[in-house]
Amino acid sequence: MVAAVSAFLAAAGANIVSLDQHATEQSGGTFMQRTIFHLPGLTAARDELEREFAEQVAVPFGMDFRLTEAAKPKRVAIMASKEDHCLLDLLWRNRRGELDMSVAMVIANHPDLADQVRPFSVPFLHVPASREIREDAERRQLELLRGNVDLVVLARYMQILTPQFIADVGCPLINIHHSFLPAFIGAAPYRRAKERGVKLVGATAHYVTEDLDEGPIIEQDVVRVDHRHSVEDLVRLGSDVERVVLSRAVLWHCEDRIIRFGNQTIVF
Amino acid sequence: MVAAVSAFLAAAGANIVSLDQHATEQSGGTFMQRTIFHLPGLTAARDELEREFAEQVAVPFGMDFRLTEAAKPKRVAIMASKEDHCLLDLLWRNRRGELDMSVAMVIANHPDLADQVRPFSVPFLHVPASREIREDAERRQLELLRGNVDLVVLARYMQILTPQFIADVGCPLINIHHSFLPAFIGAAPYRRAKERGVKLVGATAHYVTEDLDEGPIIEQDVVRVDHRHSVEDLVRLGSDVERVVLSRAVLWHCEDRIIRFGNQTIVF
Amino acid sequence: MVAAVSAFLAAAGANIVSLDQHATEQSGGTFMQRTIFHLPGLTAARDELEREFAEQVAVPFGMDFRLTEAAKPKRVAIMASKEDHCLLDLLWRNRRGELDMSVAMVIANHPDLADQVRPFSVPFLHVPASREIREDAERRQLELLRGNVDLVVLARYMQILTPQFIADVGCPLINIHHSFLPAFIGAAPYRRAKERGVKLVGATAHYVTEDLDEGPIIEQDVVRVDHRHSVEDLVRLGSDVERVVLSRAVLWHCEDRIIRFGNQTIVF
Amino acid sequence: MVAAVSAFLAAAGANIVSLDQHATEQSGGTFMQRTIFHLPGLTAARDELEREFAEQVAVPFGMDFRLTEAAKPKRVAIMASKEDHCLLDLLWRNRRGELDMSVAMVIANHPDLADQVRPFSVPFLHVPASREIREDAERRQLELLRGNVDLVVLARYMQILTPQFIADVGCPLINIHHSFLPAFIGAAPYRRAKERGVKLVGATAHYVTEDLDEGPIIEQDVVRVDHRHSVEDLVRLGSDVERVVLSRAVLWHCEDRIIRFGNQTIVF
Repeated sequence: MVAAVSAFLAAAGANIVSLDQHATEQSGGTFMQRTIFHLPGLTAARDELEREFAEQVAVPFGMDFRLTEAAKPKRVAIMASKEDHCLLDLLWRNRRGELDMSVAMVIANHPDLADQVRPFSVPFLHVPASREIREDAERRQLELLRGNVDLVVLARYMQILTPQFIADVGCPLINIHHSFLPAFIGAAPYRRAKERGVKLVGATAHYVTEDLDEGPIIEQDVVRVDHRHSVEDLVRLGSDVERVVLSRAVLWHCEDRIIRFGNQTIVF
Repeated sequence: MVAAVSAFLAAAGANIVSLDQHATEQSGGTFMQRTIFHLPGLTAARDELEREFAEQVAVPFGMDFRLTEAAKPKRVAIMASKEDHCLLDLLWRNRRGELDMSVAMVIANHPDLADQVRPFSVPFLHVPASREIREDAERRQLELLRGNVDLVVLARYMQILTPQFIADVGCPLINIHHSFLPAFIGAAPYRRAKERGVKLVGATAHYVTEDLDEGPIIEQDVVRVDHRHSVEDLVRLGSDVERVVLSRAVLWHCEDRIIRFGNQTIVF
Repeated sequence: MVAAVSAFLAAAGANIVSLDQHATEQSGGTFMQRTIFHLPGLTAARDELEREFAEQVAVPFGMDFRLTEAAKPKRVAIMASKEDHCLLDLLWRNRRGELDMSVAMVIANHPDLADQVRPFSVPFLHVPASREIREDAERRQLELLRGNVDLVVLARYMQILTPQFIADVGCPLINIHHSFLPAFIGAAPYRRAKERGVKLVGATAHYVTEDLDEGPIIEQDVVRVDHRHSVEDLVRLGSDVERVVLSRAVLWHCEDRIIRFGNQTIVF
Repeated sequence: MVAAVSAFLAAAGANIVSLDQHATEQSGGTFMQRTIFHLPGLTAARDELEREFAEQVAVPFGMDFRLTEAAKPKRVAIMASKEDHCLLDLLWRNRRGELDMSVAMVIANHPDLADQVRPFSVPFLHVPASREIREDAERRQLELLRGNVDLVVLARYMQILTPQFIADVGCPLINIHHSFLPAFIGAAPYRRAKERGVKLVGATAHYVTEDLDEGPIIEQDVVRVDHRHSVEDLVRLGSDVERVVLSRAVLWHCEDRIIRFGNQTIVF
């Protein structure tokens, strides 16, 4: 397969810049490959290239493939509530040129963060949401999102999204949540982590699937704590990890580095 | 309380070498203090000192206290099964002079590790154990342990110990187990961690209580992994973390650095 | 000494909230102690308390001491150039209530960051500086700083400060710089780190002394990198570490957690 | 090139198991590739395969290449002095099956570690060495090593090796040394690190070149320390990092994961 893909691209005049592959098993598993190539005039030739690749390579080898143009930044919506750390880190990295994406909108179910978003020249859309008005809120959110974005980032958006919403939004969603060893599921996790005397607090960024907080993990990290840290300190340190972990996950997604495979991610 | 303890020790002719304290709340919580002092002739004077401290300080202030002689190494039993990494790390640090303890015995439910323990001049006692003969095995283990050791370290001992054993052994037990974010409870945790694509594998050392694997956490650490690591790699890297984390926990216990408080530990 | 300090504070009606100590040697070294206490009416009683403490405790024991009121936030100036990551992280944590300080001014030798500072309602003062006009620039900076601030933070301020400036400014300065193992001193450190294939890039926050970049270290951290990271990636990841490390150092300073001792810091 | 290599291997009947590549620049740099393939009867066919690859692929593309048989473990000599931690970690991982190599000999310039090596059934050769008898020592070491090993690991071998020895030994050497941010070059680095108050101590494994301690870095890691750690604690914690970092570097070398490029390593 490596040979077939490489030969096809060489024949098309493309210059392979980078190639990563991963096989899930030594033999008989699934084979995954990410190839970055440079091809002058790609945009114009794209449809034909895609068709020929399907015919000559993908179909004969029983391959799934996706062709994206790295030069086109992904259109991203960020959903938030009242917490600013993840949202601002994404906006700031984008402004700095570290994170190449086009932030189409920020949707928040509280108005609190409007002033902080404004200096970044990104539309801030307040869509009230709560358990009682979930159906209505999701309908409005879908009107804003569908067809308009390639990725939705949940940057500490504190409302549950229904499986229907996730199915209808038509693009991947990335979420961030705190993580501990062991997990403290349910309410007041930081307080319970403190009561158990945990020595590490962390965060996990993952794709959202129907099973909330159970989708494929993209990135994780932790920070050391000890008995001198209060619950508030744990929250603060956890926030520091969350913003970095979420930003890495979004960056890798925007660079098309991630392949989803079952409930795993391959991050090239 | 700090003043009272310090004044008592000063009056007794002791030189305070180190003093750590921790309050669980800004006001109204539990106050904990660890004081290391040097007092010539302590061993002879110990009983009297303890009695006077109780009378003059502990009782008036409603204080629990414990006086240990740092010069007397703790007597330790290590329980193991077939895995050598945690056991050997403890024995090796002890031989090197890094970990001051007196290893009274290694108790294993399999004979496999005898050859590896022998060069350390530590008694290796094979006590077969399994679910079927648990009662008998624990009776024999208790005969060996009770009154003979100050600490039992479960160095990847793969048998469940009954609450009765834990109550009867008469000294603390420290255990090590693998840890992930999130936890993968039950069988084959490394395989399931791989299937979820975790990016960190870790280990937790904790005191053993009746709730298996739920006692106060002493130490934790993690190591980064990615999709290129096989399940076997995860196990190997997890083992590296386990031995370091367990050794740190045992060291701190042997140095009397740890105060248990509810389901937490304060590690000074 | 612990006894004397504790007894004095108890007699004065103070409630000791927290007490940390450190001795540089087992015996005969320097003994350091940080005591947090609550005393109603401290502000009014402060001068007298300080005088009595000197007479009754500090002088007899040959002790240096400093009494600060935790309720009064430190007045801080931040000096910056064109890089925003450290500056914004400090301002953002301050606005969030994570970092209790009063930011009196931002002094920058370039005007670029004015727009980013404005939303935080902090004065932005542009004082051009370069090698050619160093004397004049430092004179103007000193006019702004002397007597007005308790701490100067160099948040990627890219000009050398003269020993005279450091002596005259009349308060501590904290600086941040990138760090590698081994160090790459001089120009283009990230490129040279890349050429050597380093696997970790990090940052060091330290107090500024006459020996540039050689003062007492307050905090350090690192992040893993590999051959797939370009020099630009190293710079970006290094920036992430820098802002976190500098913010921790400033936080600890503002909480009076740090004691300088020779070229070391004790961080309680 | 990817296409050419893949096509050649496919035509030869090989099944590509894994393929990694790295380009030093987006365009115009050096392109490196590591391909693992399975080919029944490789040992017999090897010479012919190598010749044909050179003719059909390597020469036309101006490629350097090396073909190694993964099934043949590397023959390794470990050189040590008195410190046991790195040596024992390598021997122990080898015995456990974690580190596939054939340890041909341990050469030590002190006899102290003989008893510890013996249980591993590896020849322990005592070759006294010191500055005064360097020439003679290196002559004897070369007699033992030349042609007999594929790798020499310096596991805390505390003698300087001459450039002549390094040139004559005829195989790569891997060394481990402690690392700090910043570096403390010269005598007593741990004491000086303590005096500077460093917050991280680490280790670097690297290939040995004529410039001592300046060769291409293979792996690095660090551990956090604080003011409560004595110089002895720093040494102990540093040792823990050293053994893990060296073992990883040797593992990767033995798995042919490392490509040297100038003064860098690419670790696939």
